[in-house]
Amino acid sequence: MSTGNTTRMYREIREIPDVTRRLLSDGVEPIIAAAAQLRDLNPSVLMTVARGSSDHAATYFKYACEIQMGIPVASIGPSVASIYKAKLNLKNAACLSVSQSGQSPDIVEMVDSARKQGALSIAITNQPNSPLSGASDFTIPINARQEKSVAATKTFVASVVTELALLAHWSDDKELIAAINSLPDVFEKAVECDWPQLSDVLLDAQMLFVLGRGLSSAVAGEAALKFKETCRIHAESYSTEPVIIWRNKALTFWQRQIKYEMPTNLTSRQPGIQ
Amino acid sequence: MSTGNTTRMYREIREIPDVTRRLLSDGVEPIIAAAAQLRDLNPSVLMTVARGSSDHAATYFKYACEIQMGIPVASIGPSVASIYKAKLNLKNAACLSVSQSGQSPDIVEMVDSARKQGALSIAITNQPNSPLSGASDFTIPINARQEKSVAATKTFVASVVTELALLAHWSDDKELIAAINSLPDVFEKAVECDWPQLSDVLLDAQMLFVLGRGLSSAVAGEAALKFKETCRIHAESYSTEPVIIWRNKALTFWQRQIKYEMPTNLTSRQPGIQ
Repeated sequence: MSTGNTTRMYREIREIPDVTRRLLSDGVEPIIAAAAQLRDLNPSVLMTVARGSSDHAATYFKYACEIQMGIPVASIGPSVASIYKAKLNLKNAACLSVSQSGQSPDIVEMVDSARKQGALSIAITNQPNSPLSGASDFTIPINARQEKSVAATKTFVASVVTELALLAHWSDDKELIAAINSLPDVFEKAVECDWPQLSDVLLDAQMLFVLGRGLSSAVAGEAALKFKETCRIHAESYSTEPVIIWRNKALTFWQRQIKYEMPTNLTSRQPGIQ
Repeated sequence: MSTGNTTRMYREIREIPDVTRRLLSDGVEPIIAAAAQLRDLNPSVLMTVARGSSDHAATYFKYACEIQMGIPVASIGPSVASIYKAKLNLKNAACLSVSQSGQSPDIVEMVDSARKQGALSIAITNQPNSPLSGASDFTIPINARQEKSVAATKTFVASVVTELALLAHWSDDKELIAAINSLPDVFEKAVECDWPQLSDVLLDAQMLFVLGRGLSSAVAGEAALKFKETCRIHAESYSTEPVIIWRNKALTFWQRQIKYEMPTNLTSRQPGIQ
């Protein structure tokens, strides 16, 4: 990140270790309280309401919740309430909304509708006094302080960490709680990372596919959005599996080589960390 | 479609009126029977399992089911079963899978897992003797005959029409049933459509965003895939709303004008139909 050290985005990325450390210490009580509510309810289905970066965080929650809790998670488009005025049957359901600002009228309208239809409504937001918070039974503030960059970074990571902590406390998974509590230290190392090979590959790129699957598909979606927002290249996230299938079918469009595989295990494979 | 009349894709598109007419007459019994099963079960949640074009059809079902039945629909990634080996709690749930071939091992594995976990499993497929059918409680054959083109067309439309008919019979919505039964006649007109302005705009395009929201987001996703597969341009579907917001924020990346708005009401706005 040698070229970015004067941007707001760069500075906010460097706040991630402190933001998440604060979240998991001073900010953990609302997470534990919301987890207790979910344990009491034992919902048969969860729904998420979010958009953009927050929706990628919600996708991460979807996979994590399905894997950790065995409960199906439906991502509900805000238009279901705001345009179609549909009333969902949400008996024994919970609604998780994610929104940095907590302001989007159609997110608020969907959450308000979900609560009226019987869902336990939990909001993850950076603005605990927002309309979204007012429409929810329960608010978890991520306490990431103001995010000035258009490209969300610290609020995205803080939202995902909040979701993971929520699932860990809900399932009372001591091992997962310990792993999550070690994340700020991992982030300290991660913000020092550099990927020079990736920059080289991208230098003249106009288009980019970011591949992921399962949990990593959420991160791929967010990475693609960052590339769009900051590098102005047409980056799209895609599921890994069909791309492999298409490559095997030798379709011309997909014949460009996969040029870079992002290291996922920071401690063993990341060249920037000793 | 003046230039495409020798391609398999073109010929298969022209079969759509007949395929759907056959589906809604000779092929309607399994749809009515599956609808009766769903009515008896009255599920609190539905899940969909699909990939590619079929997953776009499943997204259409998701919105249609939420709007028509008020039941949340969770799109479950096949990796939840095939990679993560998660067991979902699917008491009082139904699982709708969509697959032209019914062959994909991880789709079959997810459906098999869903049935074992208690879900009523309904498969929409063009291959009623496939492994997917074997893993399901109930199969609805779309009877679209062989699809030779790599780019799915008639099977996509037949899958969506099947889904709509399933919802219409499930809710015993006479008006919707009548509207669906009129679709083959609408398709007769639709296959004669031409959009010369659209071709003009796309002639030199390397990148394309296809915008949609709610029900039309499913169609936008499928249209983007068709552009990728057949025109080799990087087409991506996107929700209409954030694009409007971004345009208002005057981000450079989005400043390119929206150049063409696809007519949606064929009878009143489509220049190709009198």
